[in-house]
Amino acid sequence: MTTVTCIAPVNIATLKYWGKRDEHLILPLNDSISATLSTDQMHAKTTIMASPDFTKDRIWLNGKEESFSNQRLLTCINEIKRRATLGEKGDEKDSKSNWKVHICSENNFPTAAGLASSAAGYACLVYCLGKVFGVEGDLSSVARLGSGSACRSVLGGFVRWHKGDKDDGSDSHASQVVPASHWPNLKVLILVVSDNRKKVSSTSGMQQSVKTSELLKHRVEHIVPKRTELFIKAIESRNFNTFAELTMKDSNQFHSVCLDTYPPAVYMNDISHAIVEFVHCYNKSKGTNKVAYTFDAGPNACLFLQEEDVGEVVSLIEQAFPPLDNAKDYIRGLEVKRPKAQNDLAVPSGPHESGLLKYIIHTKIGEGPQVLTGHNVHLLNKEGLPKSL
Amino acid sequence: MTTVTCIAPVNIATLKYWGKRDEHLILPLNDSISATLSTDQMHAKTTIMASPDFTKDRIWLNGKEESFSNQRLLTCINEIKRRATLGEKGDEKDSKSNWKVHICSENNFPTAAGLASSAAGYACLVYCLGKVFGVEGDLSSVARLGSGSACRSVLGGFVRWHKGDKDDGSDSHASQVVPASHWPNLKVLILVVSDNRKKVSSTSGMQQSVKTSELLKHRVEHIVPKRTELFIKAIESRNFNTFAELTMKDSNQFHSVCLDTYPPAVYMNDISHAIVEFVHCYNKSKGTNKVAYTFDAGPNACLFLQEEDVGEVVSLIEQAFPPLDNAKDYIRGLEVKRPKAQNDLAVPSGPHESGLLKYIIHTKIGEGPQVLTGHNVHLLNKEGLPKSL
Repeated sequence: MTTVTCIAPVNIATLKYWGKRDEHLILPLNDSISATLSTDQMHAKTTIMASPDFTKDRIWLNGKEESFSNQRLLTCINEIKRRATLGEKGDEKDSKSNWKVHICSENNFPTAAGLASSAAGYACLVYCLGKVFGVEGDLSSVARLGSGSACRSVLGGFVRWHKGDKDDGSDSHASQVVPASHWPNLKVLILVVSDNRKKVSSTSGMQQSVKTSELLKHRVEHIVPKRTELFIKAIESRNFNTFAELTMKDSNQFHSVCLDTYPPAVYMNDISHAIVEFVHCYNKSKGTNKVAYTFDAGPNACLFLQEEDVGEVVSLIEQAFPPLDNAKDYIRGLEVKRPKAQNDLAVPSGPHESGLLKYIIHTKIGEGPQVLTGHNVHLLNKEGLPKSL
Repeated sequence: MTTVTCIAPVNIATLKYWGKRDEHLILPLNDSISATLSTDQMHAKTTIMASPDFTKDRIWLNGKEESFSNQRLLTCINEIKRRATLGEKGDEKDSKSNWKVHICSENNFPTAAGLASSAAGYACLVYCLGKVFGVEGDLSSVARLGSGSACRSVLGGFVRWHKGDKDDGSDSHASQVVPASHWPNLKVLILVVSDNRKKVSSTSGMQQSVKTSELLKHRVEHIVPKRTELFIKAIESRNFNTFAELTMKDSNQFHSVCLDTYPPAVYMNDISHAIVEFVHCYNKSKGTNKVAYTFDAGPNACLFLQEEDVGEVVSLIEQAFPPLDNAKDYIRGLEVKRPKAQNDLAVPSGPHESGLLKYIIHTKIGEGPQVLTGHNVHLLNKEGLPKSL
């Protein structure tokens, strides 16, 4: 019997992935670049137990048992087991790869945060499976089969997902641009926006974009290749002003393509656009880009900024987007060092009505998945059932 | 002394104009197509009095005297006077073109409607000036010098503004695609949306787009030329389904380009997007396009639909977007024939909270500018001063 528990990070794309060239193998139309966020604030956690005594594969997600017949889940497990048996000799009947597994996974952040929980979840699953079955080497292309952007969560720092050119997808994998330690003063604020609209899933949204948006074709062919190189230069040289401009432009262009889709896919709302306006006004008042926004397929903002600006920016956000009177833990995560005279700051836009933001998470760039050791780390008990049940 | 009073229509672009190739001459980057709306519901009205006794040029807009030093106003007047004197012989000192003018203009629709009042206003001004000074021939290129889209308001029906290729702009004028009588059952609903954001002016928004949006370049060079031909075919053949799809796609692409602008120019709001969703859900339920939306540089929707569908669509809009309890005249303009069992209709999306729409104007495609005759049509009294003062 083998039991392994891992955690894996969330990642936020600064150069966006939108559109697949192969739906089944999850191969993207363009390269993308993301920042891996620290697992201290947000992570998926997965325990996998493999045993010759288990009679069937089972999986529990966020406390609830789910069907194991999910095709993407099966694809990931089968690929890991295939790789595990590549080097094996002798009697295959005794091979560990015939063992059934129990999988238990949960996120430590609410799904309401609208953060790509599937990316952290599949990265964690695949990393953990690799440890259980002793698979070495790059696992990003396996994680990609679970959820495209999951391939970027198997590495820390800034990560590039190469679209690859081959039909079998073997060259569509992630590589590290720089480690987390490269840019230590880069911080991140996640602004969780109040929203109750039903949303277009990103899978179906990007399918529609590929089918109907001529602007997406132009973006993929002519804009992203140049922008990829500019991003890498800005990150390598820690040029925040340029990095911020590229990040904001690419977020806007991604949502622009969504709007050029027929019918349009709309992910940002009025609150998102008020945050955009806040950031541009603030940067203008500073004469340089001090903050960059980026929005995924949802209304929440992810802001990048430098450590020395966090206190002032958080104070201004609280004034421009005041919490409801009864809001608990409006600022979460890393400590925020407030400026001394925070009430004397000039609020760049707003103030808006209270309650437009639910809460704010302060975090930073972090490492890739890790194995947890020590007492009591597992989500499954000795019988292979969730401790939470 | 000469006194002439004219009215001129609003126009709504279905193929959008966005971006100038010459700021001074107001030459567009691409052709555009618009529908001229009936002056019965919405128009600008202008009285111009020219007299050898006036000592200076004066202008009153919506009841308030304005400076005559507005460059675009001067450009239009000088161009009309230049054309008026082209055929003249003899003593220029006695020429009418040396007379000073008093101009009084007003719109019969609130500026809150966010409709392009400058288009109707400049079309009316130029048409009226032409009558006063006896200038014949196409005046669209003069109206263009006042406000680009005004050139499309000098004609009725569907109108095409040819971008032209010449540097001097002499081939950038409007022509009629079909007269208003060509598609008599085509109706229009203007949905006036509640909004209190400050807006990016369309002049500065399009300047920024030209500077910063690569997607605009692609649109202008590769998409609009094809779409222009498709639009003309759909209009000529009265193919509503195709006309609707082209109209919605072009509206979306225009706002997509605005979002790809840096900083982004955002004109639609959450209510606008709720209307978009309503239209797509309704069309889906009907299995064909029964309604088309288009949005200019503001949050208000302009819907095109066929006469036989107006009653049902208006009833559904009222249910999906209910008025405030104290709303007066929620539906304005042409009579709406309600379906008998309007409460049994399936509302395609919503219902939303009350008060998202201020009111709705029901109108149709109409004629170009007209001279008003008869008693009491003038906005100026015999002394050349506004009657309203």
